[in-house]
Amino acid sequence: MDTQNAVAELQSSLGQRITRSKSDLDLHGRSESHFSLSPPDAVAYPETTEEVTQIVRICARHRLPVVGWGTGTSLEGQAQAFSGGVVVDFSRMNRILRIAAEDMTVTVQPGVTREALNEELRATGLFFPVDPGANASLGGMASTRASGTTAVRYGTMRDNVRALEVVTATGAVIRTGTAARKSASGYDLTALFVGAEGTLGLITELTLRLYGQPEAISSAVCAFETVRDAVDCVIDTIQCGIPMARIELMDTDSVRAVNAYAAMGLPERPHLLLEFHGSPASVAEQAETFGAIAADHAASGFAQATRSEERTALWTMRHNAYYAILAARPGARAIVTDICVPISRLAQAIDETRADLTQAGVQGPILGHVGDGNFHAILLVDETDPAEIARAQAASDRMVARSLALGGTATGEHGIGVGKLGYMEREHGAGWAMMGAIKQALDPDNILNPGKLVPPRN
Amino acid sequence: MDTQNAVAELQSSLGQRITRSKSDLDLHGRSESHFSLSPPDAVAYPETTEEVTQIVRICARHRLPVVGWGTGTSLEGQAQAFSGGVVVDFSRMNRILRIAAEDMTVTVQPGVTREALNEELRATGLFFPVDPGANASLGGMASTRASGTTAVRYGTMRDNVRALEVVTATGAVIRTGTAARKSASGYDLTALFVGAEGTLGLITELTLRLYGQPEAISSAVCAFETVRDAVDCVIDTIQCGIPMARIELMDTDSVRAVNAYAAMGLPERPHLLLEFHGSPASVAEQAETFGAIAADHAASGFAQATRSEERTALWTMRHNAYYAILAARPGARAIVTDICVPISRLAQAIDETRADLTQAGVQGPILGHVGDGNFHAILLVDETDPAEIARAQAASDRMVARSLALGGTATGEHGIGVGKLGYMEREHGAGWAMMGAIKQALDPDNILNPGKLVPPRN
Repeated sequence: MDTQNAVAELQSSLGQRITRSKSDLDLHGRSESHFSLSPPDAVAYPETTEEVTQIVRICARHRLPVVGWGTGTSLEGQAQAFSGGVVVDFSRMNRILRIAAEDMTVTVQPGVTREALNEELRATGLFFPVDPGANASLGGMASTRASGTTAVRYGTMRDNVRALEVVTATGAVIRTGTAARKSASGYDLTALFVGAEGTLGLITELTLRLYGQPEAISSAVCAFETVRDAVDCVIDTIQCGIPMARIELMDTDSVRAVNAYAAMGLPERPHLLLEFHGSPASVAEQAETFGAIAADHAASGFAQATRSEERTALWTMRHNAYYAILAARPGARAIVTDICVPISRLAQAIDETRADLTQAGVQGPILGHVGDGNFHAILLVDETDPAEIARAQAASDRMVARSLALGGTATGEHGIGVGKLGYMEREHGAGWAMMGAIKQALDPDNILNPGKLVPPRN
Repeated sequence: MDTQNAVAELQSSLGQRITRSKSDLDLHGRSESHFSLSPPDAVAYPETTEEVTQIVRICARHRLPVVGWGTGTSLEGQAQAFSGGVVVDFSRMNRILRIAAEDMTVTVQPGVTREALNEELRATGLFFPVDPGANASLGGMASTRASGTTAVRYGTMRDNVRALEVVTATGAVIRTGTAARKSASGYDLTALFVGAEGTLGLITELTLRLYGQPEAISSAVCAFETVRDAVDCVIDTIQCGIPMARIELMDTDSVRAVNAYAAMGLPERPHLLLEFHGSPASVAEQAETFGAIAADHAASGFAQATRSEERTALWTMRHNAYYAILAARPGARAIVTDICVPISRLAQAIDETRADLTQAGVQGPILGHVGDGNFHAILLVDETDPAEIARAQAASDRMVARSLALGGTATGEHGIGVGKLGYMEREHGAGWAMMGAIKQALDPDNILNPGKLVPPRN
């Protein structure tokens, strides 16, 4: 590893767009989570795919790690260069290249954020639905297989990336997928790169699936006696075929937090937050059918919001719930858990988690994308109290063990990075070694985001 | 390669369930397509995953190829053992292991056929939608990434396989995916095995996504002046957000063929065949909206069929269209093409194909899953006329070239096998070499379905 020479070579091709300033390194050494600052050796700001290939080739020659960076909003340290090297910041590759309205696709550079894309799409009658909360970059969302509140209807990034351009570990450029809606031609390389967290290649272009903006949208909220009632209502709703656009759970502690944070005035009980998309007649029918199912589960206060401002208020509350929960314990930091179980086991998983947290004396309001069986307990800890952090970490480990025992996964949407590396073998068994073999085949010198996701090299 | 000893070892573990009888070898050496008979060295009929691991381990030790076999209905020679070896016939691994109604999933052995599954599901109110026409096995459908008439609404096997159990090249058993609806944990090995045509492992168990049987179903048919009118109508329909369950094109030649074959009495013009799924109100709304769009494109004869018998007659006609087309030229055999293009280029692709076939003097009625941009020209050739076969093959090559030039793929749903191997490099460029590197990493001795899909080994 010859950092000085590598950076000198990079400067000759990128000029000012490679930097080693302390502020830039620090900015790209942080994370949204609790991982410690780990500044890279340099930060590069490529503007073209050709420049990305140059960066990778130079780094490959000098065995310097290359780590992609979107908006730095990933939660498991995915974009941190723990082994040093060059962080490739895609913020200057932020052009929308082609909107193909008839094909309902868009081709973008990886630095385009989801909000910027939807702003640009507004006039076309189309939209891109995947919404992880943060205004993340689409390259980062693909690399981490992001999802969020709308996955129950529109799927995750797995379902919405149709084609990619990728720079490989040798600096070659490949294209995966086509502009067609389906193909039976060869290994699904697109799916392999989605969720690979930059360990197999750097995504330099994405073709994404779009949807028609719904003619009508209606949101709703209702309260339940117990989490189990709420989850049973979700199961019946999905089985009934109601194409829910969003169906989110807030447990009583979360409701208390948003009430305190935003004066929402909700009854202090578990709530479902809902959204229906469709034609006006279809939305009305969906809401009516849902209302009947909710009544069967002793729901109360089922109220629809069809006006745009009311809907915005509801989803702003949901998106800010994390901050509301953080504010519930001033000075605390959060350990965010992310398990996802078969929906039939969801009530059990939440009940057991709640009981476990209570017994362990860990404060942890629960928010969930319950239509997918995915939920987060936001564990609030005093950063200066190692014993409390250890208690919370142990509770988080037990949540993962519980999820795996119930047929679920350690992470529904936040990914692995380094934060969940310790669960990989347990979840995948010999499949994890297979992931390592693929990594070894495609990146033999281990320069692409080393130390993440796959088994450590010997 | 030591076939005698390998078979002797296999006999000691499988007894009568490994055979070398000529009839069995011939039965497993054929294909639905024009590939010549290529009997394997032996056919094994495992009943358990454990037996599959034994077969693979013994074959690996003796460097004998192992080729999976479902129902033998693949179209590109995927299941033929062109290099000899053992064909693993999964027909005895045909148990439905678990119906998880609340999770809307089912876990099956690979030999279960789609019709057997849906028969079993009937009483549950759920169904499995992927319908490639043939009553294929679900293991084979996953391995070839099958789709068919319903993919426009429910997706292909890519979208409907949630988890797999796979026996790898070393005889290890791995599990990919979980029972949860989504996961951000690691490389998407499930997607890697779906469509890999048995070159990376043998699928021994599948967890599939199910859907609620629609409360109401309505079919319809209508005629257009031109293929372009029909395709423009499809584009508008999809953009409008009508969740079409099926939307199929038959060109004039195909309509003539089904009229002759089944006395359908349809006007000799391009037709769309449609199906709507939903609540009664939603189906009525969908049909009404479609009717208005169709009228804008000068459609005629828009007639709905809500009674089950009428619907069955319509889709039986569609499923038999291939045979109707074959019957249009007695004694001919078919070269079935399978291109898939962005829907915006579909009318152009069909028009140019039609003109090309006319000019080349090749008879080739066209059928299409037009909601996906996928269509088949069924090229009818006299098997005894090499010049005619060469003309048809050249026209087929031009179709693929056209598809790739328009941003599409060489195969929407039939897969690669050996039949489309010649197009892989052109379609995937350096991505094809990457597929080869993955194959080399996971099956270094090249025993799993050798000679298919990836670049030939040196």
